[in-house]
Amino acid sequence: MTIPTPQPSDKFSFGLWTVAYPGRDPFGEPTRAPMDPIYALERLAGLGAYGVNFHDDDLIPFGSDDSSRTAIIDRWKKGLADTGLAVTTATTNLFSHPLFKDGGFTSNDREVRRFALRKVMRNIDLAAELGAKVYVCWGGREGAESGAAKDVAAALDRYREGFNLLGEFVHDKGYDIKFAIEPKPNEPRGDILLPTIGHALAFIETLDRSENVGVNPEIGHEEMAGLNAAHGYAQAMWQGKLFHIDLNGQSGPRYDQDFRFGAGNARGAFWVVDALLSGGYDGPVHFDFKTPRTEDDEGVWTAAAACMTNYLILRDKAIAFRADPEVQAALVAAKLPELAKPTLNEGESWSELEASTGPSPDELADYGAGFEHLDQLALEHLYGVRGA
Amino acid sequence: MTIPTPQPSDKFSFGLWTVAYPGRDPFGEPTRAPMDPIYALERLAGLGAYGVNFHDDDLIPFGSDDSSRTAIIDRWKKGLADTGLAVTTATTNLFSHPLFKDGGFTSNDREVRRFALRKVMRNIDLAAELGAKVYVCWGGREGAESGAAKDVAAALDRYREGFNLLGEFVHDKGYDIKFAIEPKPNEPRGDILLPTIGHALAFIETLDRSENVGVNPEIGHEEMAGLNAAHGYAQAMWQGKLFHIDLNGQSGPRYDQDFRFGAGNARGAFWVVDALLSGGYDGPVHFDFKTPRTEDDEGVWTAAAACMTNYLILRDKAIAFRADPEVQAALVAAKLPELAKPTLNEGESWSELEASTGPSPDELADYGAGFEHLDQLALEHLYGVRGA
Amino acid sequence: MTIPTPQPSDKFSFGLWTVAYPGRDPFGEPTRAPMDPIYALERLAGLGAYGVNFHDDDLIPFGSDDSSRTAIIDRWKKGLADTGLAVTTATTNLFSHPLFKDGGFTSNDREVRRFALRKVMRNIDLAAELGAKVYVCWGGREGAESGAAKDVAAALDRYREGFNLLGEFVHDKGYDIKFAIEPKPNEPRGDILLPTIGHALAFIETLDRSENVGVNPEIGHEEMAGLNAAHGYAQAMWQGKLFHIDLNGQSGPRYDQDFRFGAGNARGAFWVVDALLSGGYDGPVHFDFKTPRTEDDEGVWTAAAACMTNYLILRDKAIAFRADPEVQAALVAAKLPELAKPTLNEGESWSELEASTGPSPDELADYGAGFEHLDQLALEHLYGVRGA
Amino acid sequence: MTIPTPQPSDKFSFGLWTVAYPGRDPFGEPTRAPMDPIYALERLAGLGAYGVNFHDDDLIPFGSDDSSRTAIIDRWKKGLADTGLAVTTATTNLFSHPLFKDGGFTSNDREVRRFALRKVMRNIDLAAELGAKVYVCWGGREGAESGAAKDVAAALDRYREGFNLLGEFVHDKGYDIKFAIEPKPNEPRGDILLPTIGHALAFIETLDRSENVGVNPEIGHEEMAGLNAAHGYAQAMWQGKLFHIDLNGQSGPRYDQDFRFGAGNARGAFWVVDALLSGGYDGPVHFDFKTPRTEDDEGVWTAAAACMTNYLILRDKAIAFRADPEVQAALVAAKLPELAKPTLNEGESWSELEASTGPSPDELADYGAGFEHLDQLALEHLYGVRGA
Repeated sequence: MTIPTPQPSDKFSFGLWTVAYPGRDPFGEPTRAPMDPIYALERLAGLGAYGVNFHDDDLIPFGSDDSSRTAIIDRWKKGLADTGLAVTTATTNLFSHPLFKDGGFTSNDREVRRFALRKVMRNIDLAAELGAKVYVCWGGREGAESGAAKDVAAALDRYREGFNLLGEFVHDKGYDIKFAIEPKPNEPRGDILLPTIGHALAFIETLDRSENVGVNPEIGHEEMAGLNAAHGYAQAMWQGKLFHIDLNGQSGPRYDQDFRFGAGNARGAFWVVDALLSGGYDGPVHFDFKTPRTEDDEGVWTAAAACMTNYLILRDKAIAFRADPEVQAALVAAKLPELAKPTLNEGESWSELEASTGPSPDELADYGAGFEHLDQLALEHLYGVRGA
Repeated sequence: MTIPTPQPSDKFSFGLWTVAYPGRDPFGEPTRAPMDPIYALERLAGLGAYGVNFHDDDLIPFGSDDSSRTAIIDRWKKGLADTGLAVTTATTNLFSHPLFKDGGFTSNDREVRRFALRKVMRNIDLAAELGAKVYVCWGGREGAESGAAKDVAAALDRYREGFNLLGEFVHDKGYDIKFAIEPKPNEPRGDILLPTIGHALAFIETLDRSENVGVNPEIGHEEMAGLNAAHGYAQAMWQGKLFHIDLNGQSGPRYDQDFRFGAGNARGAFWVVDALLSGGYDGPVHFDFKTPRTEDDEGVWTAAAACMTNYLILRDKAIAFRADPEVQAALVAAKLPELAKPTLNEGESWSELEASTGPSPDELADYGAGFEHLDQLALEHLYGVRGA
Repeated sequence: MTIPTPQPSDKFSFGLWTVAYPGRDPFGEPTRAPMDPIYALERLAGLGAYGVNFHDDDLIPFGSDDSSRTAIIDRWKKGLADTGLAVTTATTNLFSHPLFKDGGFTSNDREVRRFALRKVMRNIDLAAELGAKVYVCWGGREGAESGAAKDVAAALDRYREGFNLLGEFVHDKGYDIKFAIEPKPNEPRGDILLPTIGHALAFIETLDRSENVGVNPEIGHEEMAGLNAAHGYAQAMWQGKLFHIDLNGQSGPRYDQDFRFGAGNARGAFWVVDALLSGGYDGPVHFDFKTPRTEDDEGVWTAAAACMTNYLILRDKAIAFRADPEVQAALVAAKLPELAKPTLNEGESWSELEASTGPSPDELADYGAGFEHLDQLALEHLYGVRGA
Repeated sequence: MTIPTPQPSDKFSFGLWTVAYPGRDPFGEPTRAPMDPIYALERLAGLGAYGVNFHDDDLIPFGSDDSSRTAIIDRWKKGLADTGLAVTTATTNLFSHPLFKDGGFTSNDREVRRFALRKVMRNIDLAAELGAKVYVCWGGREGAESGAAKDVAAALDRYREGFNLLGEFVHDKGYDIKFAIEPKPNEPRGDILLPTIGHALAFIETLDRSENVGVNPEIGHEEMAGLNAAHGYAQAMWQGKLFHIDLNGQSGPRYDQDFRFGAGNARGAFWVVDALLSGGYDGPVHFDFKTPRTEDDEGVWTAAAACMTNYLILRDKAIAFRADPEVQAALVAAKLPELAKPTLNEGESWSELEASTGPSPDELADYGAGFEHLDQLALEHLYGVRGA
């Protein structure tokens, strides 16, 4: 097997904040210089990326006056045109400025909530102008460190109110934009509202225009809760709500590591790719990683390129795994085709099922599921010792 | 403050499996003798409990013939009558027999799935006969240890098919019974489907009779995923879906500990009680604990009584906390009343909000939230150094 | 029970970096202004603290010239004299400047290691001058994000070399200073060397002057690894190595939360205090907390005061628990006095033990340990519903 | 790359309890029949294993009379001779019988402690007779669920007393046997004493014959605490104490999963193998896994064979990684050779270091560590897309 090369047709995208991350962490100062967004575009295009996305403040420093803002946006548009990169999504920074210390949409301070919504609307206008099809909402500050600080029911009311307003906004403006909520269990808040894919999916069902809101799950965020990321992606697709993805790496419950995709839980990464292919996800393949602060600028591009390379390697492996005749036989032996069949006969009622009989319990128990054989085949595909 | 005494009016209930747990664990044999269910009823009634619940196999050994079954049920009814205990809920054991090794509703084996549904229907009939109002479904074996062993989308289809069938069954039979799904992230399966409150709530929305299905969250299960249990309970109530509760104790992400309520995360337990009171939960207060195998029979009843005592202590504390004028002032200072107010003015549109102005960012940032003061008041109530 | 007031005789101490933490986190800018160290001294003294400690760079900005440094130190000494606060420990910042991005003592870069050692020596001179008796070493950057980046054996050689050098330094200078290593499992590095109390204790045994080196465990750091902090403190005392303590709060495996002591795992905090009292720890009671960035300056002092208050509350409770006759009876019933007795008879050899007989296995198994009763008594002391 | 075949020269060994695990778990009955130990030997030998090991009760049912015991041992010896398998280690079951509910060496009950020590001595005699060179001690029940139930200092005294006695026993008997303590953080006890490699290493230093006691770390146990298993193995080797190893798979902090080696944290497994090769570990390569209860007997042998296959695959990869010229260049670029060099010049004193000068801080910070490139090379070796 050779190492594949990313192409724009692979639809890889990166956040401006990912490659521009200067290496500041809770205990240390930046180790890399601020990055010019145009330079980021040029390097990403050179590596074979398809798209970029950004928080408003990644591109336009918070508090810029209108003329500065216009100049920045014009330069950005030129950079996009020059490099051919698409803007796949955009998002709002509702977490860096001290005003958001208690959240944006669910801040206890009503004026903060109003400010937050205005900030989002302003950036959605820009997102629409730049052609973004998905607007990501990570509510990283919507949460609490202590029990009485946040009335969860009231906060969810406000969260819903915010999304309902934005749904109207996008509808009235005629924008072809969907929202994607990005769950996270904790950090920077002690506990964050909508902590997992599941909580976000459940919340979405309460919205006025719920059809226009889905999720943008990040592998690392789910794994911070010890959850199986591939299972979460699969449930989101099953519910028709996987509107965008954030791929990266994490080593289980601990601080948010944002390793390059492939690093972290390498085996889990294989199953995420397999789940995306099986579920027919066809949106941008986005990476939300941070290059460790040990690295210099070249290290950033090494890591960014590796995100894409690793995805392609794993995509090839997942395809080869599913195409392998030995795997297909093992899937049959493990009764996966039987899981795909309804439990009931066509038109069967509960009373017919109730009256039916089947094998005895001991007969039902008397089989080996063959999962270890199946999983070992998968692992050998991951190791590259089987198949192409 | 004195130590309160449980009363039936407190609506405390226990699973038969909780007090009868004989102390078998993955590494050791039982340390206590099997417990006669009638003895369990007598002791629970003596301690002030209100109700009991049971898995079918807790009461009626798997495989009992019909006449044995009838005799057991008759004796059970007499025991209930003698003690005055109510059957608050019932549930099905779809995990102990080897036939369920790959799940019940989502087993890859179709005949297992059919067997599982018949087993549930049979026990719902009994539950209805005994007056249970909630039927709990813990899908502890619905999951996988490896990636290809379970096609999550197909499994969720089967899961939905199962609940749809049972919804028809209960409807057609005219039973006054609601379903409550109990999420758990892992153990005994490597990863379990519907791993958290959120995932279960989202799944429920896809059901035919979703109004009849809610959740039965267990504190320990949520804390195994590092989630804030009180937040989860609050979201479930906010979505109108907290149909039943399983209270116990856990020390974070590790094996399922099922400590008595109060042990484990003591501070988290306070906030769970506060959330239940704030959200108006009025169902049975159920404990799903296991007495450590170091204990003998008396230890079991010590632990069972302590579950109730601790709930009452925490209930008193939560009430005192909310009634404390200093707390009320701190809540105002922390702007909780402001969180309860809509972000938008009455009838305000997005365009009006967009056109509105508010304080500058620096002005918005210039306040202290007062959460540490508020939380310290809560902690002092927990410690019992403040208030009554 | 009334809320106790901290006194200097309680020997409470705070890091300058704790109260001066401005609220910068990985996702947000500072929410509080830089704090004048003298103001910190004044406020701490006003709250009843006994001592302070500091990283070199907390007090003297990195890169200060000699005259600035002298002026700052003189002002600091005056502040100490004015407030009566002691300098209990000092430590070195080997993590903020980008040069330390791959560690200090174990950086792959030899010149960085040499720089780090010089930086430590310089600050030990100051620590000795100010009367500190313990010099804390937190190797937060000694670790790696990836497998080949750090040769662990070589890194431990360098770590040992560094401590051996510093041991000589302190010995030759005649300083009355001991070293205390502070373990942490991860953050800011993916994995940190000497991740727990145990790993640090084991490492210490390899040092030339190991008698002069102990540990400074932080509750939160142990709980980030899901470990029982009280057990860890107890083993450190058992090995004669608990030279200093860092008390704070954490909610299990996740990012380093540094909550005020008492918040986080409230029940675990009780057992830590009980362990300290039982083990006879008599050093400073140090808090290493960070006030959440939601708070303003007053919130900082609320949180700082609460650390002390909570310790005093828990100390009173732990003393009352141990003095409670019902507890003492429960301890006897739980056979704690029997655990304190040697397993062997006086002078008994293995062959005598081998030849001896005792009760049968069934007889040995036939008892209840009474731990639930004992633990419930402890919980009721924690709740304040029992005792004084 | 082809899939390698295990050979006895690879020194693979299995616990009798691993392959014979019948699939009982906390929620379910066994799914597989009891396994004849001789059958286990035959199958293991057929798969290319080198050795076996056992708890006393795995081989000889607890409570067997002397003649049964002799017959069992004779049959076992014949099985060993017939298959050519070596007994590499042995160990004692101090956890299954209810008498051990509060531990063995540290049970609060003195007679239990005495019984436990006699049980160990008896099995060491057998271990020596069968040629085992290592005696493993997993103190899985040495711990507590609640704070006052175990006086940690007293318990560690008893733990030490036990090991001191056994050290005398082995010495006096002239056995060529070393002890290996197996740490675990929790399960089946709420918290276990000596929870990590570090805690065990530190404890060992306090023993009378500490030179004869090392550790037997299990990957899964370290990962249950979120620790880097390869780092732990490396520290144990650095301290000369890696006397035996337990390889398996785990998915982070949760219940003890005991997956086959390679499953679980696949990337971590690569680094464990690399650490073992780098550190020169030359003992048996032991697997402590449990086949999931979904599997039948053939599934057991599939999983057992896969443990060995995966080790060989990863060993080939680790060797190829270290031999790859591009990797070697990347290691130089990442300054690993510089980490291997002492920080001090030959004979340099602290005063000479103090007086020396080096590059300025900014100069020291101005480099990229090159770790991402190095780690990506490792990942590509793991994926099998680079090298042989």
